[in-house]
Amino acid sequence: MSAVRFGIAGLGRLGRRHAENLAWRVPGAQLVAACSPVAEEREWASSNLPALSLYADYDELLTDASIDAVWLVTPTSLHASQIIAALRAGKHVFCEKPLSLDLAECDAVIDEHARHPHLHVMIGFVRRFDASYRDAFDSVANGAIGRPFMVRSQTCDKNDPDGFFVRFAPTSGGLFLDCSVHDIDLARWLLGNPRAKRVYASGTIAIHDGLRACNDIDNGVGTIEFEDGRLAVLYASRTMAHGHDTQTEVIGTAGALAVGRNPRANRVEIADVHGMRNACTPTFFERFEDAFLREAQAFVALLRDGKPTGLTLDDAREATRIGIAMRRAYEEGGAVEL
Amino acid sequence: MSAVRFGIAGLGRLGRRHAENLAWRVPGAQLVAACSPVAEEREWASSNLPALSLYADYDELLTDASIDAVWLVTPTSLHASQIIAALRAGKHVFCEKPLSLDLAECDAVIDEHARHPHLHVMIGFVRRFDASYRDAFDSVANGAIGRPFMVRSQTCDKNDPDGFFVRFAPTSGGLFLDCSVHDIDLARWLLGNPRAKRVYASGTIAIHDGLRACNDIDNGVGTIEFEDGRLAVLYASRTMAHGHDTQTEVIGTAGALAVGRNPRANRVEIADVHGMRNACTPTFFERFEDAFLREAQAFVALLRDGKPTGLTLDDAREATRIGIAMRRAYEEGGAVEL
Amino acid sequence: MSAVRFGIAGLGRLGRRHAENLAWRVPGAQLVAACSPVAEEREWASSNLPALSLYADYDELLTDASIDAVWLVTPTSLHASQIIAALRAGKHVFCEKPLSLDLAECDAVIDEHARHPHLHVMIGFVRRFDASYRDAFDSVANGAIGRPFMVRSQTCDKNDPDGFFVRFAPTSGGLFLDCSVHDIDLARWLLGNPRAKRVYASGTIAIHDGLRACNDIDNGVGTIEFEDGRLAVLYASRTMAHGHDTQTEVIGTAGALAVGRNPRANRVEIADVHGMRNACTPTFFERFEDAFLREAQAFVALLRDGKPTGLTLDDAREATRIGIAMRRAYEEGGAVEL
Amino acid sequence: MSAVRFGIAGLGRLGRRHAENLAWRVPGAQLVAACSPVAEEREWASSNLPALSLYADYDELLTDASIDAVWLVTPTSLHASQIIAALRAGKHVFCEKPLSLDLAECDAVIDEHARHPHLHVMIGFVRRFDASYRDAFDSVANGAIGRPFMVRSQTCDKNDPDGFFVRFAPTSGGLFLDCSVHDIDLARWLLGNPRAKRVYASGTIAIHDGLRACNDIDNGVGTIEFEDGRLAVLYASRTMAHGHDTQTEVIGTAGALAVGRNPRANRVEIADVHGMRNACTPTFFERFEDAFLREAQAFVALLRDGKPTGLTLDDAREATRIGIAMRRAYEEGGAVEL
Repeated sequence: MSAVRFGIAGLGRLGRRHAENLAWRVPGAQLVAACSPVAEEREWASSNLPALSLYADYDELLTDASIDAVWLVTPTSLHASQIIAALRAGKHVFCEKPLSLDLAECDAVIDEHARHPHLHVMIGFVRRFDASYRDAFDSVANGAIGRPFMVRSQTCDKNDPDGFFVRFAPTSGGLFLDCSVHDIDLARWLLGNPRAKRVYASGTIAIHDGLRACNDIDNGVGTIEFEDGRLAVLYASRTMAHGHDTQTEVIGTAGALAVGRNPRANRVEIADVHGMRNACTPTFFERFEDAFLREAQAFVALLRDGKPTGLTLDDAREATRIGIAMRRAYEEGGAVEL
Repeated sequence: MSAVRFGIAGLGRLGRRHAENLAWRVPGAQLVAACSPVAEEREWASSNLPALSLYADYDELLTDASIDAVWLVTPTSLHASQIIAALRAGKHVFCEKPLSLDLAECDAVIDEHARHPHLHVMIGFVRRFDASYRDAFDSVANGAIGRPFMVRSQTCDKNDPDGFFVRFAPTSGGLFLDCSVHDIDLARWLLGNPRAKRVYASGTIAIHDGLRACNDIDNGVGTIEFEDGRLAVLYASRTMAHGHDTQTEVIGTAGALAVGRNPRANRVEIADVHGMRNACTPTFFERFEDAFLREAQAFVALLRDGKPTGLTLDDAREATRIGIAMRRAYEEGGAVEL
Repeated sequence: MSAVRFGIAGLGRLGRRHAENLAWRVPGAQLVAACSPVAEEREWASSNLPALSLYADYDELLTDASIDAVWLVTPTSLHASQIIAALRAGKHVFCEKPLSLDLAECDAVIDEHARHPHLHVMIGFVRRFDASYRDAFDSVANGAIGRPFMVRSQTCDKNDPDGFFVRFAPTSGGLFLDCSVHDIDLARWLLGNPRAKRVYASGTIAIHDGLRACNDIDNGVGTIEFEDGRLAVLYASRTMAHGHDTQTEVIGTAGALAVGRNPRANRVEIADVHGMRNACTPTFFERFEDAFLREAQAFVALLRDGKPTGLTLDDAREATRIGIAMRRAYEEGGAVEL
Repeated sequence: MSAVRFGIAGLGRLGRRHAENLAWRVPGAQLVAACSPVAEEREWASSNLPALSLYADYDELLTDASIDAVWLVTPTSLHASQIIAALRAGKHVFCEKPLSLDLAECDAVIDEHARHPHLHVMIGFVRRFDASYRDAFDSVANGAIGRPFMVRSQTCDKNDPDGFFVRFAPTSGGLFLDCSVHDIDLARWLLGNPRAKRVYASGTIAIHDGLRACNDIDNGVGTIEFEDGRLAVLYASRTMAHGHDTQTEVIGTAGALAVGRNPRANRVEIADVHGMRNACTPTFFERFEDAFLREAQAFVALLRDGKPTGLTLDDAREATRIGIAMRRAYEEGGAVEL
């Protein structure tokens, strides 16, 4: 069986990780092209990746007949149109989360995809591919905690004292759509895809006053009420002192499972004047390095062997829909019915 | 300085613990009387406590001139009237939490207390006296985590498969007033007593369908929005599989403190076919055994030395007020403004 | 049943703790006398303890007819002669560990005790009375780990940068007899009192060069080989950076139990720039505060109810015998047969 | 720079992992040949690896001119002669630990290697390449714990109830040479390669009586005394109930570092009737999966870029020398001078 030939679009910090994975670490994948409007990023590619075609323009990439699939690590505002263009060009698509900040765009992608049933589109909810989350999912599925009825989940980034991210806040969709969207997807996945009925959310600016200009926050909490009484309680933050601290708990009638309660960097513990301690994962890169690789392997297995990933465009649309409702609930100070 | 002479009212399971503490373990306290309408409880007292006067009737207890203070471990519905009667009889009062399920009753107690400024009334928010919570409070006060802006706190009881507690649910005030009231008080205490502006709450029945009859739930979550953007996220449950799991987290701009993340029973860890594990505290008795003792010591120190406890009737009223709002938010499915 | 009336001898740092326990916290005990050759210590007693008789001279204490039992917290070099004198005066005896640094002295105490079978003597191997150690012992006895065949145990003190303890090193018996004696006793207790056959020990001076003068060390390790192949591996240190770190592991054919793997000060965890961490118990006082109390309760229960403690003078002698052998093994650089 | 072309010898369980790493996961490596006398293993290779040359005979492998380096995952008894033959054939050599059970053989390899200074030989002490061990090493080197003076380290395998390994015990060199050799190497590495002066060891058969026939044990402990008072305390076991439990502690004058204190399988924690717990790594494969990969990357980096690994044949010889001394100490019941 021949390798899947990928063209990647977007070579920023995360894009480079994906490119390296596709180039070196995913059996069955071949990275044959890369695309970036930024000259410096194309130079990085030509110096650091195996020989490949380089494009400044995404439309040119799509005309490259040697490419089976595109891998999008581009700004969220471009996702929908780029996916649609790729489908029309006959390419499979992997796209970083979120699918879009806009429901109509999500629907347009879903509609276009329906016209190309032989092509696969996968949105990169990377946490589903982390070994610990996978173990938790399997344990829940095997009945280890009885009937799961509640998820608590958080996505908390280490504080960047420079507040560099504040510049990107206006286009990020806000804290809930940028960060909590992961937890929304996890909650639905771990609870068996129940339908959301109502959400509530609150937030505050703990440190970065610059967010006020775009009505964003640096700490936010929310509740999702699903049908059948299932619940999710979410927390997102950009101001952690100790590191990137992503954790998720699934509570069932016969037990509870927690993933990542201590964001330990590795297996080292230190005993010194500061007490008994461990270092923490500084960013989501270190935390989900393996998951990014497994995610790519899963997409290749889907394309080559038809092995389902359990992740659909409808899941991605639902994460956006709930995220938007959380933002609205925060803005309005009241529950939002779905 | 002479010992404070106590008369205790209520000798149920928790009352007996309090009685034993007052009788044997609190220097400066003397347990001289006990009161219970239940003959079996009075017999327990005469067999297990040092010689003391026994009363079936609370009013008789109050006429006992040898008593300086009463210690109430009676049903919540009696708290307010019993406190008022004790104040009128010239006694100091310790009373188990919550002060009352009714705001008007809280106000009546506060009004009566204002007429007896030389008498002390303390409501037993026992967690404030736990060594670990005290350490967390002191660390926050010392600036260890910068400015605290959020509390996450839970009161989760081990599931009672017999659902015995369902019988008492109709008079308990419901999950939020019975359990979350602790977390409400902790959140206010740890955040510096900010004023609550709005609450939201959700809940579900995971196991005990019998609660439906009184519109109660066995798992509930809630959000409290305080002035200045401070937040509290609470969880209460009656269905934990592993034990009594009370934990609280304070998140600040320079760090976070967690109390009780693993409800370990003691310092023993076991490595066997079930993995690496520790037993958990089965009930709040084991978890807060020391705190009940320190609470009594603190009340005696208040009476003898005037040492303030930092806990006022207004705090108790506020906990009830917020708890009522959470119940209403759950019932109405919408945010409640305070 | 009347209270046991105690006279305590020795009011140093540890003696004061014992005195306070006997005075206030042990139902059934009454502290009626105290003895110290140090005027300042007697003054402390008269200011801080309930009214009691004070003696400068131990022999005078023994003539006090109101005393049922003496409680010795005196220098190790005095233990044997003071126990013998107390037995001859018809008093029960509690004595801090170790019984003696000299085997002949141990035997003299055992011989004298045999002449007073109605009197109890207990050596304070306090760890046996710690709730976690007790839980571990019970679990082992109940077969939780199958057949226990190995103990690893350590007594590690926080480093005292002033090296104050170096002054007392010459009379302490050395690291193995002063610290490891606890672990020796625990190993025997947890393994079912097997007979030791051979020991080996090594040591080093990591920090406190002043110990060289008396041939002592500040870090030492040892192995005890018992009959039937049971093993103990011990570690003692005076130079820990993080706190007092006492831990013990029992390894069996079906699992292992560890006590105190993380010497956490309480239930608080901190997440900040130093990582995820907990404070550690600074000294054995904080770690074993409860155990000292339970130890006193157990001795009173022995005297009043005849409830056995499971701790004999032969156990104390054996701990000394093995400790002496470890010291010799270290000095000679070779295994010592027992 | 062209890829390093490898021929692997030995395709048992561990050999297959190495082969898959070289085939798919090590940039700069190419697996071009494999050798096994077992037909079934060669068939596995032809079905599961990229196209390569297959040999039944090791000497034939060495005549394959397309091979730059051999990778030996063969029985320990063959290591020395196979390394020597490979060097004579002009091949670089990676060889699984231990180098040999015999010091004369170690010396013969070292002598032969001296005749081929342009060829590299690396013995696979895989733990040095584990991310956590590497972090510990770097932290020690950076002074995080002051001067390191003691290592405690263990290699403990999960019990195999079938005792399958007993069959291989006679040729394994015994517990100390098979398991502790890892800890010996780690202790030397972490303490700065001090010279060993004296060792002591003890052991027992806890479960597998079949080991008695070859004078082996299933649990063993040992002490290594290095020059300058540095110490190592080792433990090896084949009978753990909970999983593969490899851990190492480095104790210094300003702190201590522990690697792997809880052999957690991943980031999942479970709260249920068994308490709060985590699953454990079942075998060294899961524990050191990443380290095997990094080890291969390090060897390729050595061959291509001359980047030193810090691991020499003298280190491998020293591990064998100390392991032999530990076995002798156990057999003789006395300390062995080195």
